[in-house]
Amino acid sequence: MKTYQELSREELLKLQSDLNKEYEEAKAKGLSLNMSRGKPAASQLNMGMSFLDVLNSNSDMKTEAGVDTRNYGELTGIPEAKKLMADMMGVSADNVIVCGNASLNIMYDTISRSMTHGILGNTPWCKLDQVKFLCPAPGYDRHFAVTGHFGIEMITVPMSPEGPDMDLVEKLVAEDASIKGIWCVPKYSNPQGYTYSDETVRRFAALKPAAKDFRIFWDNAYVIHDLYEDRSDSLLEILSECEKAGNPDMVYEFASTSKVTFAGSGIAAIASSQANLDEMKKSMTIQTIGYDKVNQLRHVRYFKNIDGMKEHMKKHAAIMRPKFEAVLAVLDRELAGTGIGTWTRPNGGYFISFDAMEGCAKAIVAKCKEAGVTLTGAGATYPYGKDPKDSNIRIAPSFPTQEELAMATDLFVLCVKLVSVEKLLQA
Amino acid sequence: MKTYQELSREELLKLQSDLNKEYEEAKAKGLSLNMSRGKPAASQLNMGMSFLDVLNSNSDMKTEAGVDTRNYGELTGIPEAKKLMADMMGVSADNVIVCGNASLNIMYDTISRSMTHGILGNTPWCKLDQVKFLCPAPGYDRHFAVTGHFGIEMITVPMSPEGPDMDLVEKLVAEDASIKGIWCVPKYSNPQGYTYSDETVRRFAALKPAAKDFRIFWDNAYVIHDLYEDRSDSLLEILSECEKAGNPDMVYEFASTSKVTFAGSGIAAIASSQANLDEMKKSMTIQTIGYDKVNQLRHVRYFKNIDGMKEHMKKHAAIMRPKFEAVLAVLDRELAGTGIGTWTRPNGGYFISFDAMEGCAKAIVAKCKEAGVTLTGAGATYPYGKDPKDSNIRIAPSFPTQEELAMATDLFVLCVKLVSVEKLLQA
Repeated sequence: MKTYQELSREELLKLQSDLNKEYEEAKAKGLSLNMSRGKPAASQLNMGMSFLDVLNSNSDMKTEAGVDTRNYGELTGIPEAKKLMADMMGVSADNVIVCGNASLNIMYDTISRSMTHGILGNTPWCKLDQVKFLCPAPGYDRHFAVTGHFGIEMITVPMSPEGPDMDLVEKLVAEDASIKGIWCVPKYSNPQGYTYSDETVRRFAALKPAAKDFRIFWDNAYVIHDLYEDRSDSLLEILSECEKAGNPDMVYEFASTSKVTFAGSGIAAIASSQANLDEMKKSMTIQTIGYDKVNQLRHVRYFKNIDGMKEHMKKHAAIMRPKFEAVLAVLDRELAGTGIGTWTRPNGGYFISFDAMEGCAKAIVAKCKEAGVTLTGAGATYPYGKDPKDSNIRIAPSFPTQEELAMATDLFVLCVKLVSVEKLLQA
Repeated sequence: MKTYQELSREELLKLQSDLNKEYEEAKAKGLSLNMSRGKPAASQLNMGMSFLDVLNSNSDMKTEAGVDTRNYGELTGIPEAKKLMADMMGVSADNVIVCGNASLNIMYDTISRSMTHGILGNTPWCKLDQVKFLCPAPGYDRHFAVTGHFGIEMITVPMSPEGPDMDLVEKLVAEDASIKGIWCVPKYSNPQGYTYSDETVRRFAALKPAAKDFRIFWDNAYVIHDLYEDRSDSLLEILSECEKAGNPDMVYEFASTSKVTFAGSGIAAIASSQANLDEMKKSMTIQTIGYDKVNQLRHVRYFKNIDGMKEHMKKHAAIMRPKFEAVLAVLDRELAGTGIGTWTRPNGGYFISFDAMEGCAKAIVAKCKEAGVTLTGAGATYPYGKDPKDSNIRIAPSFPTQEELAMATDLFVLCVKLVSVEKLLQA
């Protein structure tokens, strides 16, 4: 079989004509499908409905230590919720604060606090002429949105299956004291599904940043979100690595149950050193009287412990796995050997990352949209929404039903082919 | 009956000796009671337990418009929760955003956003040399803590039963463009339980501040928290007053159900002009994917509408009223006519405000503490924790049982007498 690049002009024109016909037929179907966001499917949410039964009017609403979760208090979270979230991240409960429903909100607050108050006695970032963040990309658009919102300059760092380009990271943070942080999704990265290698984690822990207030923002969003029981990735625990390397305060880790219980009604947590948590507490005690402890208790009673939570994640995997496989099957069948795309095969997380030929991503996403299939905006996976190669597309298979997904992916590969042919004809 | 001030030195010494004996006896009881915070009592929380039953595994989790509350989306809150909170505040649902569990958190975020991003195109406060807030006092310590945390200078404005001293407020905001806001608890104010008069509200709405980004922080924490059915205060609705006065953007109003359902597990909302809400949305869309909509739905299903919520508040009042009356009865019986204290008789809210003789508050609170009764720290009701007269003490009758309350108030009046006698003997 020839790659598209090997086709003659005539072959390409013939192909284009066939594909255009197919595309017009597809458009006529009037699809309305969405593969844009990492939203759980209704089936996943239905599967977890008994979560709502564990607390009712007959429940004992006290923590093990006797604190009434219905009243004010326990600013940093109830101890058993700390334990649960700590076990999720593989850290000690002493290193955890449990907050509200969204880890993104904790990240935002952490950046916001660094802007207005600085980190551990260092100058507040809003008083500095320049603040920069390293952004491994493709990455998570909402991370880039937070730093962008605060006027923080974003520097793209290339990703590999081992994690970010650590040669570059080490060099940049050592040289430039205005680099204050780096965004990481270390396990089943968004969107590629890569998990940082042990060496990458160790090199992170051993960084020698010029800025004393440099922090790794370790968004462990998919820490227990495996798709397969027999081939899950494992990630080195970074807090202890940082401590071993003499950098105990260098990392803020985040996790949540948004994709464990209900999206938007989960609990979120931060894990960090005592010094960092103490500083955070100082702000928290001003910011709120406490987060929703009833929902913390609901989580603890529902899962009992981390084993219960992991068992629950197998049910999510059972729903997610066939969807990932459905997308991958279409990609394999339609695009393998064509030379017009590469894609990742993650063992977990919520995304498949697709790389089209350079200069094609925007056109592919637009073509899909025109025929009723919404994908994440091309470029969204890069800082400032600008993919320098206009190549990366994030595919989110979780939300549609399997049937919808088959239709959506069929349309996607059709658009990839069509746009690629057009590109080659222009060349 | 003579006032304490009219007693001779001999009479005072005799009284002191009797009181000291009483105090030693009280101390020997080893009390451990807390009247320091506006915490709901266990009986109030028990009364509302069926709140936990309205959503269970058989529930339809969709909003009236068909949105699944268990998934991401609806950043500004589900429409029916907006309606409920709007009706609570007497405003239109279009003017409301429903957030997480704590109105304090919305206030903090609003100040924080003003620091880093400014208000409607005005200079971010963190870029200004000086930012000041007016603080009607006695007031709510957590308000002062927020402005203090961001280095905002606080200017005390005296309170009267009609509200803040509006002559002073009008003068200061008109003169000084660095005054960017004022903290208000307009109904059943914390700690005095005063409700701003219609004239006060209209004068607020008609302010002519030098700063374009001056905002009234209208913390309507006790908007439906009446103690009596036959004599509740009424507060003029400020959003429409501001609009009428040509100042549509001048107010942020806040409310929550922290003292309606469960403290810490309620829902909180902001009401403001479209321009202010649009600006807030721009930050929110970066800050979070959305707040806990399941808990919003739980509130809506539980109360059905504002009438249901108001009925529910009558049950809270039935528990709170006798506690307020118990405290007032002891104060009346023991201190009326003594000249050593005055106190408020609120029709709602969570506090009674007590004014001791000048220079006595700290000593009274310390004496109470020594005998096992915790009160809000003296001075807490003033900016920087400094009551210039050292006179105001906030009494929070909600949390203890009625029996505990009687003991605690007995001790309190004993300490008031003892400290007052000591003060008079020093004079």
